[in-house]
Amino acid sequence: MLSAAGVATAAACVNQRLRRETTMRLMVILLVGGILAVLTQSVAADDGMFPMSELSRLNLRERGLDLTAEELFNPSGVSLVDGICRVNGCTGSFVSANGLIITNHHCAFGAIQKASTRERDLLQEGFRAASRAEEIPAPDYQVRITEDYQDVSEQVLSVIAAEMSFLERTRAVDRRCRELEQEAEKQHPGLRAEVSEMFPGRTYVLFLYTYLKDVRLVFAPPVSVGNFGGEIDNWEWPRHTGDFSFMRAYTAPDGSSATYAEENIPYRPRRHLQVAAEGVDEGDAVFLLGYPGRTSRHRTAEFVRYERDIRLPLTVELYSWQISEMERAAAEDREVAIRVASRMRSLANVEKRSRGQVLGLTRAGIVEQRSAREAELQKYIDADASRRQKYGTVLSEINGVYAEMTAAGPWEIHFQQLRQACQAMSYGFYVVDAAAERAKADLEREESYQDRNFEQTSGRMLLSIRDWNRRLDITLLSGILERLGQFPESRKIPALQRLTENASLIGQHAESLLTATSLGDAEFVRACLEKSSEELAALDDPLLHLLIELYPQYVQMRDQQKAQDGQLDRLYGSLLEVKEQFLAEAFVPDANATLRLTTGRVRGYSPADAVIRTPISTLRGVIEKTTGAAPFNTPDAVLKAWQADDSGQFRHPRLGQVPVAILYDTDTTGGNSGSPVLNRRGELVGVNFDRCFEATINDFAWNTDYSRSIGVDIRYVLWITSRVYGAGYLLQEMGVDSAE
Amino acid sequence: MLSAAGVATAAACVNQRLRRETTMRLMVILLVGGILAVLTQSVAADDGMFPMSELSRLNLRERGLDLTAEELFNPSGVSLVDGICRVNGCTGSFVSANGLIITNHHCAFGAIQKASTRERDLLQEGFRAASRAEEIPAPDYQVRITEDYQDVSEQVLSVIAAEMSFLERTRAVDRRCRELEQEAEKQHPGLRAEVSEMFPGRTYVLFLYTYLKDVRLVFAPPVSVGNFGGEIDNWEWPRHTGDFSFMRAYTAPDGSSATYAEENIPYRPRRHLQVAAEGVDEGDAVFLLGYPGRTSRHRTAEFVRYERDIRLPLTVELYSWQISEMERAAAEDREVAIRVASRMRSLANVEKRSRGQVLGLTRAGIVEQRSAREAELQKYIDADASRRQKYGTVLSEINGVYAEMTAAGPWEIHFQQLRQACQAMSYGFYVVDAAAERAKADLEREESYQDRNFEQTSGRMLLSIRDWNRRLDITLLSGILERLGQFPESRKIPALQRLTENASLIGQHAESLLTATSLGDAEFVRACLEKSSEELAALDDPLLHLLIELYPQYVQMRDQQKAQDGQLDRLYGSLLEVKEQFLAEAFVPDANATLRLTTGRVRGYSPADAVIRTPISTLRGVIEKTTGAAPFNTPDAVLKAWQADDSGQFRHPRLGQVPVAILYDTDTTGGNSGSPVLNRRGELVGVNFDRCFEATINDFAWNTDYSRSIGVDIRYVLWITSRVYGAGYLLQEMGVDSAE
Repeated sequence: MLSAAGVATAAACVNQRLRRETTMRLMVILLVGGILAVLTQSVAADDGMFPMSELSRLNLRERGLDLTAEELFNPSGVSLVDGICRVNGCTGSFVSANGLIITNHHCAFGAIQKASTRERDLLQEGFRAASRAEEIPAPDYQVRITEDYQDVSEQVLSVIAAEMSFLERTRAVDRRCRELEQEAEKQHPGLRAEVSEMFPGRTYVLFLYTYLKDVRLVFAPPVSVGNFGGEIDNWEWPRHTGDFSFMRAYTAPDGSSATYAEENIPYRPRRHLQVAAEGVDEGDAVFLLGYPGRTSRHRTAEFVRYERDIRLPLTVELYSWQISEMERAAAEDREVAIRVASRMRSLANVEKRSRGQVLGLTRAGIVEQRSAREAELQKYIDADASRRQKYGTVLSEINGVYAEMTAAGPWEIHFQQLRQACQAMSYGFYVVDAAAERAKADLEREESYQDRNFEQTSGRMLLSIRDWNRRLDITLLSGILERLGQFPESRKIPALQRLTENASLIGQHAESLLTATSLGDAEFVRACLEKSSEELAALDDPLLHLLIELYPQYVQMRDQQKAQDGQLDRLYGSLLEVKEQFLAEAFVPDANATLRLTTGRVRGYSPADAVIRTPISTLRGVIEKTTGAAPFNTPDAVLKAWQADDSGQFRHPRLGQVPVAILYDTDTTGGNSGSPVLNRRGELVGVNFDRCFEATINDFAWNTDYSRSIGVDIRYVLWITSRVYGAGYLLQEMGVDSAE
Repeated sequence: MLSAAGVATAAACVNQRLRRETTMRLMVILLVGGILAVLTQSVAADDGMFPMSELSRLNLRERGLDLTAEELFNPSGVSLVDGICRVNGCTGSFVSANGLIITNHHCAFGAIQKASTRERDLLQEGFRAASRAEEIPAPDYQVRITEDYQDVSEQVLSVIAAEMSFLERTRAVDRRCRELEQEAEKQHPGLRAEVSEMFPGRTYVLFLYTYLKDVRLVFAPPVSVGNFGGEIDNWEWPRHTGDFSFMRAYTAPDGSSATYAEENIPYRPRRHLQVAAEGVDEGDAVFLLGYPGRTSRHRTAEFVRYERDIRLPLTVELYSWQISEMERAAAEDREVAIRVASRMRSLANVEKRSRGQVLGLTRAGIVEQRSAREAELQKYIDADASRRQKYGTVLSEINGVYAEMTAAGPWEIHFQQLRQACQAMSYGFYVVDAAAERAKADLEREESYQDRNFEQTSGRMLLSIRDWNRRLDITLLSGILERLGQFPESRKIPALQRLTENASLIGQHAESLLTATSLGDAEFVRACLEKSSEELAALDDPLLHLLIELYPQYVQMRDQQKAQDGQLDRLYGSLLEVKEQFLAEAFVPDANATLRLTTGRVRGYSPADAVIRTPISTLRGVIEKTTGAAPFNTPDAVLKAWQADDSGQFRHPRLGQVPVAILYDTDTTGGNSGSPVLNRRGELVGVNFDRCFEATINDFAWNTDYSRSIGVDIRYVLWITSRVYGAGYLLQEMGVDSAE
């Protein structure tokens, strides 16, 4: 599972397939009715992605861990957490004193892709730096280390005044968070401060992070190992993917954070993880540390209904369409294929996850379950006059917001997609938005444009222009315009009227806009970023003009969403308050990309009647799946090593094979990609990279029967790295004895 | 698995997909080489479909049976076998003293389909005869009961003379078999005699059968139960299909065999099977009695190579194409859909099986395994001068025949398909062939046209004309002509030259031929069957003329195949002789539609790394798979009964659900459809209906790891029949106590 860059905001007409599926779903709901709820256990007591602040209330020994809370996390000393970092949207682990990081192949994918050319295709061939000098800089990568945190809920909430509109409320909270961050950064030079909302409208925590900006690629297996099984196996178990890569973080010679420079030296983490080359077995306790992205376990039934019926199906439709267009373009030219690989994979990942979620939410009856629980809660509220007074309308007000989202959703999702599907529009929007925002005082700006972020966000955007493909962009712009043209009159966008009024001419308009524009040229875009709104308006670029014309509508939509967020923040604050009273227990906050611990065991599951999946896959399964054609084209080197039966110490004693991947019932979500899988002593036994298909709904609910996460087994990592690709020196660096 | 009517004889150009798959397969073979052989266990010692003549050499107790060989089969007394019958190509069991038969839904499918109309769609609605008077005659069904057998090898082989050509040899053997049958039938009036070849060229057994010709439909669940999961689940485990129906055999009032008449009375079998309503559990011993169709376990590696590389891939291509044309036609008209359902299902069944076989033969490396064993055998032969003298060239001569078949195969398969894909051509061919054959002395004729068979074969053919669809036939004729037109000059058929020489006109030719012909009219065809070859030639029907023109070429091909058969018979006779010396053990003959026993246990399997399939599926799985859309559209009645949890005595105690299907490792093949699954005491616990995908290669080799057969669980049969569809009176008739 790739960490999706933000919430999917797809857009398009619901096509025939989806309508059919929806009809089927409705039929099943009507026919089977309450039956399905019986089938599905409700959320188990054992889910939880625990923030560091909650560790003390956990009984770690009962969870099978031989470690104390202080050994896990100790901001005033050295603890296990010092060995964990965030690598862009993923998690990584330091595995040597010299800043060597292990993370997923799919997390390093962007770096591998950007370093590849038609002549030297590192995706296909894999990469091994024989020395530090050969390591390849990954300029759009950053490594983040959590240094400390403190609760700032009171300071944040103090700025809210009763008479504020919802939009004002959101703006005031945002501004206050930025102020607190600035203050903290002044106190801690070299660190970066970030306030995270833990419970919407209730608790906020300020985290202090170190950011390392010189990150280099050290080792990557060929994509036929690192992404073996591709989209067919993605979100599936059993899995046979060696989804790992090694990177290395560097600092300036004085140890401070610095961008790439030849004289930089390897970062020396306070602590690194020990590798347990003997791995784990079925039933063993494991735990993960990582940065899970987003979950929605505390949202109401109506939110889940909106997701299930509106946003997720639209995502499936819009992303499937874009993927098929990219596949067409890639099939014609290997160069294009390399350029779109990362984006296509990211879309495919979200598309399949969304499909799994629609299916899972329906099958598990999550909406129905939550509705039932909310009805109980409402009864509890109504049973007491003062409670009714205070909380009586909270649920219905929340549902009111979701009703608005449901009504506006399809159009808004399509309108957003106009500038996400078409890359040139996305660059142009950034330019126009930046000019408007950067004219404001720093603290008033959208986050991306604040001084402390602008260099990074604009740098990343400029880098991505390298992969621009005009032909593909024309196709995608045409498609999204066609879809927007089909909305009813009330939803027509004046600025687009002349483009969409004649459906048969849309392709021509898209072609002429994207032929005339310079927004696919990084130098032009870089120059634009220096200009004011007025200067941009004076440029002779038709696409830029179109974006300037559309801009007020985007801002209006953004403000409206902020207002909704403000309203929901207030309402959820109240809802959690009364829910806590009702259930008489504390909750674990939804994932929000902050550091979390989750525990579990290596454990199989039954995805369907009469089927059991066992929790350790082996090299034998790789051979069974190998067809010779991608994504099942195991490299010769792996086949030869298998034939030579060169597995030695990496063989699983009971299974008689090198284990490839492991399955465990810890609670994870996107962002946990690359998280270390640790044994009871806190030693590395795997690298988390996916969930099983049934666990795509982890984002909404965790279930003991089928919420399972997938990691690459450390034994496969070590076997591939040393025996197959001859980088035994990395095992030495990690302190693993790789002698026969 | 449907019992395919004869060997699939598909025909067409290998399309792109198949070429790609073949390329992939070659790549894997080249890359992985010997690896796969290691993966796959060679044929286990425990396979075997034992003829009744072999029962005495089996240790039944060791196989878990509480029965003696005499209790199973005793031609001079009453034994279990008297409760078994053949129902057209399937097996059935008598389950009451009044001729009630249980078999598969797919075995009764033709009867259900023929009794259905647009107004009264028994496929969709199911059928229940509330009284005997309501039972529906199935005129093209016959029930066959095995009465006795005797070895006639010596009498058959005595007619072979050394100077005979291979064609003469085959003709002499055929003729001798027919003579023996006639003699036996004279000795046993009312019975039918059939000589079966057990080991080619070596052993022949004469069976005596009773044929009952008045068979009626008693009970069939809706197709959404009887074929739940359809082609998606066909050949798959876990399975959730209630693939059973009840029929009843009738005789004349005096107990003799008779065709349908109102005054007929239920047949009274010498013995019927007891139903064990408590079913079986994992690990329990089970055995099957039935009429498995064809296996090729004693054929050489080169035969398997021909199947894997020529016949099976062509079958896949030709059948997929025909199925897609039928689907298109069916989608437009429900009436057409009913008419083509049975044929389409039969093709789809063979298509998927063939796909499984190509995959399985490749993965299991059967060709390579057999080659290796044959090399050992050749070494053994060459090691002794007298053996070399006698058997030295047997293997190479056999391979010579297969080399001829491989060279001619693609063209021959297409040429055969010309009259199988196009139904009107098939009727016309029958007519032309009948006129030529019936002009000969009875014993000299092809089997179908001998007096004792002609009425039945022509009756069945005439019945099938009801389902003829001109539009579909035009499409199929065009398609096959296009394919034939693409063969090189040396393979051109003079009679087709004017039809295929201009590819763009083929459709028009097909249309005009099938518009002008009367061969889709049963009355016309019936009249044709009375005519001589000369009279047929005088008729004014262009399609009939074309067939008369093509006929000599078909006869030539048939004679050539007979000559090959004669040659192979002689060669395999020698091969088995020397193989028996080499291995110093007796073999079980290949299946040949005669009565066989096979034993095993209820047992799961692992189809792939980290996946286990357990051997009892349950009603819960039906609900899980139900989408509301075919083939997963569980009827309301089933959903309601499930909701009411009305499972009572039919619930599996450990699983807490009504079991739906069971999996066991007995050795079966097509023709075992409908076979009773019996517990250790010989009581009915299920009805066999399919194999798992990995077991499609049972036809070539049996494997302890993945050769598994599938039966509907007797508890599901009883629950559906009584609790869901209210035919509790059938349980009473079977002596099952169905009180709550």
